[in-house]
Amino acid sequence: MARIVMKFGGTSVADVDRIRNVARHVKREVDAGHEVAVVVSAMAGKTNELVSWTREAAPMHDAREYDTVVASGEQVTSGLLAIALQTMGVHARSWQGWQIPVRTDNAHGAARIVDIDGARLIERFGQGQVAVIAGFQGVGPDNRVATLGRGGSDTSAVAIAAAVKADRCDIYTDVDGVYTTDPRIEPKARRLARISFEEMLEMASLGAKVLQVRSVELAMVHNVRTFVRSSFEDPDAPGMGDFDNPPGTLICDEEEIVEQQVVTGIAYAKDEAQISLRRVADRPGVAAGIFGPLAEAGINVDMIVQNVSEHGASTDMTFTVPSGDLDKALAVIEQRRDTLGYDAVQSEAGLVKVSVIGIGMRSHAGVAATAFRALADKGINIRAITTSEIKISILIDGPYAELAVRTLHSVYGLDKQ
Amino acid sequence: MARIVMKFGGTSVADVDRIRNVARHVKREVDAGHEVAVVVSAMAGKTNELVSWTREAAPMHDAREYDTVVASGEQVTSGLLAIALQTMGVHARSWQGWQIPVRTDNAHGAARIVDIDGARLIERFGQGQVAVIAGFQGVGPDNRVATLGRGGSDTSAVAIAAAVKADRCDIYTDVDGVYTTDPRIEPKARRLARISFEEMLEMASLGAKVLQVRSVELAMVHNVRTFVRSSFEDPDAPGMGDFDNPPGTLICDEEEIVEQQVVTGIAYAKDEAQISLRRVADRPGVAAGIFGPLAEAGINVDMIVQNVSEHGASTDMTFTVPSGDLDKALAVIEQRRDTLGYDAVQSEAGLVKVSVIGIGMRSHAGVAATAFRALADKGINIRAITTSEIKISILIDGPYAELAVRTLHSVYGLDKQ
Repeated sequence: MARIVMKFGGTSVADVDRIRNVARHVKREVDAGHEVAVVVSAMAGKTNELVSWTREAAPMHDAREYDTVVASGEQVTSGLLAIALQTMGVHARSWQGWQIPVRTDNAHGAARIVDIDGARLIERFGQGQVAVIAGFQGVGPDNRVATLGRGGSDTSAVAIAAAVKADRCDIYTDVDGVYTTDPRIEPKARRLARISFEEMLEMASLGAKVLQVRSVELAMVHNVRTFVRSSFEDPDAPGMGDFDNPPGTLICDEEEIVEQQVVTGIAYAKDEAQISLRRVADRPGVAAGIFGPLAEAGINVDMIVQNVSEHGASTDMTFTVPSGDLDKALAVIEQRRDTLGYDAVQSEAGLVKVSVIGIGMRSHAGVAATAFRALADKGINIRAITTSEIKISILIDGPYAELAVRTLHSVYGLDKQ
Repeated sequence: MARIVMKFGGTSVADVDRIRNVARHVKREVDAGHEVAVVVSAMAGKTNELVSWTREAAPMHDAREYDTVVASGEQVTSGLLAIALQTMGVHARSWQGWQIPVRTDNAHGAARIVDIDGARLIERFGQGQVAVIAGFQGVGPDNRVATLGRGGSDTSAVAIAAAVKADRCDIYTDVDGVYTTDPRIEPKARRLARISFEEMLEMASLGAKVLQVRSVELAMVHNVRTFVRSSFEDPDAPGMGDFDNPPGTLICDEEEIVEQQVVTGIAYAKDEAQISLRRVADRPGVAAGIFGPLAEAGINVDMIVQNVSEHGASTDMTFTVPSGDLDKALAVIEQRRDTLGYDAVQSEAGLVKVSVIGIGMRSHAGVAATAFRALADKGINIRAITTSEIKISILIDGPYAELAVRTLHSVYGLDKQ
């Protein structure tokens, strides 16, 4: 007997038929003797509809009222799934954030979970009850519904798993796991059996589509073993109820990953734009002078590359922003020309960032060199490089994106079983 | 300065545009210096959609989960109206039943309001806040959302008006008041300026389309002056903000109705079926023996006519049920043939009940005789008659419905100003 939190996203509960399918997944785990809590999203499309109504009512609207409107989507799913489970003979009951309670801070529309009363949920496990919990929401100190921001249901699930000390948190979604790279680009991409929390966070483009970054951070902090798996498979197919190795990808502490690959996956981010400031004065506070104003303008800066200056007086600073934000970013830079004291600005849009990710590279030399050699062999020019302990990111020209991903995927042996 | 509760039904809040129009009605009263609470229904069609999902999930479903799903409709409207009001500069805030709280009993799906914390609402009036309250719901002793059953938003509004001791409860709907009869049958029908609670309850077919019977009962008990008026008129048209005489019909205590008409209105109910039991044994318990089983079978019996028996040994018993329930009712009667000991059963479907309603008839003789004479003059045969203190109901053949309504409307002078 184990304790499992199961989370189902919007496409998994898109209509009553799909909700019934979700109920079969839940029943399978209950029949296996596990204690189960379920966290649900709104039916696909519902959140968008509700959000669009709040915008129609007023483009700038009160976040408290936004929360009241938008949180209703998950409420509906929780009730419908409880009904579907009851009809299958499962003792189920729906719970909203304010009932559990899931306590949040007062940042309506993007609240953070402060505390979850796990004891009462555990008490109900003891009574054989499956808790069906509306995700994405809690109750603020003002006794009003507060939502966690987009994708918050993943965060709800991980937080509840931590609160009830679950053995596992299963995130059911429309993909069946995390892959070594995007299968649309490299058909030889393989599903990973396991990936560490740190790698999952670095996966960015690959991972973010599967799981909210915030929920991975939370899972890492509380060491919640999180499975990403598909809700679209037959709930009763062989192996679906395998407790130790269900089909999907386990996101876990690196210590659980015995045979660590040097490289785990190849990620990419399209439509990056590069901005280079030439001969910026090399003195304390210059970086803050550039990136402070950009942050205030709401521009998300991704890569930042600053080289050690040759003469000690000035340096070059390169960074990337989403292509759509390039004009806005250039305007901000232009405004600050006098304070920043740079010589010239160069920019280019339509670039791609390709990243090699692997916790194993910490203990293996030459991982970066392998990448650079492989790209050079294909005639791919490298514009900029940044590295972290477990990730190498390379900025290249847009048209080479697919070639670079496939080349790197192959050179690290990821397309071999 | 007065205190007003305003209630808006589903068609009045059907989309964001209509919700904005509702906000203008609210703003008008706020600008006039009144303290205002607003009670809203779900957007038209939403409740039906939610109910159909619960049925699709399971034909027989848990009422607690039904409540969780269905109550979300009013929640959405309350948030959207609060946003629309805030955009117009009105200090508004949405409140759900569990937040106020509106305490109900545990009869999920058809709960009754037990208690409303009016003090906190009044406190917020003092802070200049307009409370936008999700109708149709409260919170049960189990700390779960409980809905009041269909049309419950009217009841919510009246209950809140009673709790905050409002001067007026305005029910905004898609008609502009209560008429002397159905204007589709008699174009000369006039809108009543005032009608007593008792008359409104007896109006049945005319009144029920406008206002839930339960809410009228509640208004009568707490003497809540209730205006029925249209949300489709221009919120800022002349006279709309007239505190003493807004356009619409005031439902109030009969003492407020100074110039009482003898007859206030003519109501009708189509598709009635008549069942007559011939020569039923005339002994105690016979009526209970007939109507007990019918009630258990969920059949709504309307008129009941039992004549004083001629010979003391047996009597005839006539009653009406909806035509759609006739077969079921006959089967119940047939099953009990031995216990009931009647000679024969006669039945006929497709009949119409026409009713003359007026609180003034208590003190005026001859009101019934006038009706019988007028119908006889038109050659309309009377099948059965029942009377209460303020209502005469006459059962006639279906094809004469319109003629009878127009005849009675005219004979009591209702088509004259």
